[in-house]
Amino acid sequence: MNPYSIGVDLGGTNLRAAAVDASGNMLAKVASATLPQANGDTVVAEIGRAIEALRAQVSGKDLAGVGVGVPGTVEREKGILIGAVNLPQLDGYPVRDAIARRIETHVILENDANAAALGEKWIGAGRDVDDLVLLTLGTGVGGGIISGGRVLQGYAGMAAELGHITVSPNGNPCGCGNNGCLEKHASAMAVSVMARLVGLGADLSSEDVYHLAAGGDDKARLVFRTAGEALGVALANLINIFNFPLYLLSGGLLPAWEFFAPAMMAEVTRRSFIFRNAPTRIVRAQLGNEAGQFGAAYLPFRPY
Amino acid sequence: MNPYSIGVDLGGTNLRAAAVDASGNMLAKVASATLPQANGDTVVAEIGRAIEALRAQVSGKDLAGVGVGVPGTVEREKGILIGAVNLPQLDGYPVRDAIARRIETHVILENDANAAALGEKWIGAGRDVDDLVLLTLGTGVGGGIISGGRVLQGYAGMAAELGHITVSPNGNPCGCGNNGCLEKHASAMAVSVMARLVGLGADLSSEDVYHLAAGGDDKARLVFRTAGEALGVALANLINIFNFPLYLLSGGLLPAWEFFAPAMMAEVTRRSFIFRNAPTRIVRAQLGNEAGQFGAAYLPFRPY
Repeated sequence: MNPYSIGVDLGGTNLRAAAVDASGNMLAKVASATLPQANGDTVVAEIGRAIEALRAQVSGKDLAGVGVGVPGTVEREKGILIGAVNLPQLDGYPVRDAIARRIETHVILENDANAAALGEKWIGAGRDVDDLVLLTLGTGVGGGIISGGRVLQGYAGMAAELGHITVSPNGNPCGCGNNGCLEKHASAMAVSVMARLVGLGADLSSEDVYHLAAGGDDKARLVFRTAGEALGVALANLINIFNFPLYLLSGGLLPAWEFFAPAMMAEVTRRSFIFRNAPTRIVRAQLGNEAGQFGAAYLPFRPY
Repeated sequence: MNPYSIGVDLGGTNLRAAAVDASGNMLAKVASATLPQANGDTVVAEIGRAIEALRAQVSGKDLAGVGVGVPGTVEREKGILIGAVNLPQLDGYPVRDAIARRIETHVILENDANAAALGEKWIGAGRDVDDLVLLTLGTGVGGGIISGGRVLQGYAGMAAELGHITVSPNGNPCGCGNNGCLEKHASAMAVSVMARLVGLGADLSSEDVYHLAAGGDDKARLVFRTAGEALGVALANLINIFNFPLYLLSGGLLPAWEFFAPAMMAEVTRRSFIFRNAPTRIVRAQLGNEAGQFGAAYLPFRPY
């Protein structure tokens, strides 16, 4: 047996899928847009086509199964997705069984940020450790926790909502009902909002703000410093809670690393005596936007 | 074979030990004061005497081993204790091997708060779950995390420093170098300090403040409400991170539950959509100051 698996990363705007062998080598990949108006049947049909396209490209190997990273909470027993804010049409849809019926193979669902963390653990920045935390700094902030080599799922599959760590009890309001959530202070959207607050402009993307910071703009640098401080509070909490060896950051904010990381590291150093006393790395993730599909592809190979 | 084990809870002021059978029934117990000036040899001799006293009281059973809960970080491979703030004379002392040599049995060390969490999981408030967090609200705030039935140790045995979660980024300074640590806003000492700040008196214990609150004093009630809010921020973070089914509180602040819990629950409800969407209990631990010795006694029985 010479197995391979297929990992699918289903996002709100993109569908990425890859065929991967048991050593983590990518054999083939496909990508397409996720239609925002598509219903569950249409999305599953698109996933099915991606899987068939990959199977057609791989020969001489057996398909061990399909893993699918989905943007929401996975109800494991039922194989459904709930709370999918960016794909509300999939809420409660029997994703797992609908795919399995179409392609007749073993299908495993996993939350997308958890899958990304698993991908980094398998063949990315975390391949030498069994315990890590991943923070994805995009429009929002997602999280995945690998403990003892496994995804920490939580009781109802809802663990690692790290974007909703309170970093400032009276901070910015969040759609979740809290205020001061990490993702309202240190995401791409938070950077845009802060750029507006300091008068840089009403419609700047985090990338625009990055270019201003790179050009020497003090206000743009203040924005990233502020985001870095918020990240530092959250990371210090995570380090004090887990004492893991590795904390990874990924996502759209990463290019601005040089502008937010110094403030982030200063906060972590001051706020976590665990950080100061135990070897702890805070570094960039390595797989970029392919982490999710690698992690999803790993699911059928898991030893448990 | 009809095994029993001995659990020792070594604190800064008290040494408690119990002989416990494999079902968690206490067969015998002893307690003595920990002499603050005692050196490592003296403390180990006292532990040895406690163990011998217990062995003498148990007949017809075989000793499976001895577990010892210690107030600090355990360096597992070496069997030593480091960072023991309340027992500095044991810092770096070969506790495990010194005890094992004296009584010729298997000895396992564990951090005291971790041991208490394990005790609650074994035969206390957590016996029906595999995943829980324990917060001990004493002079400081300690923590223990049980994940998948096991203590979450962290890479260097330093996990679960839950008293040092930042609940207020610009809050009270802490000896750890941070400010706004949970234990500076919601421990027995924090209650004393707040009582002074609101003019109730300079030397009130948290118990004194509790009696004032019970008598209807508004300032005393404000103090507990403030502590409850800080606990709520920390618990909301823990729930958003772990999505565990159970969070336990124990320690000297527990009698004031009625005065801090309403504010705590209100904060948790508002700050954690996981709490609002997944069955999550926040309740009092059940074993009181015997949790640590039960958890220590469980160590030799662990299936791993």
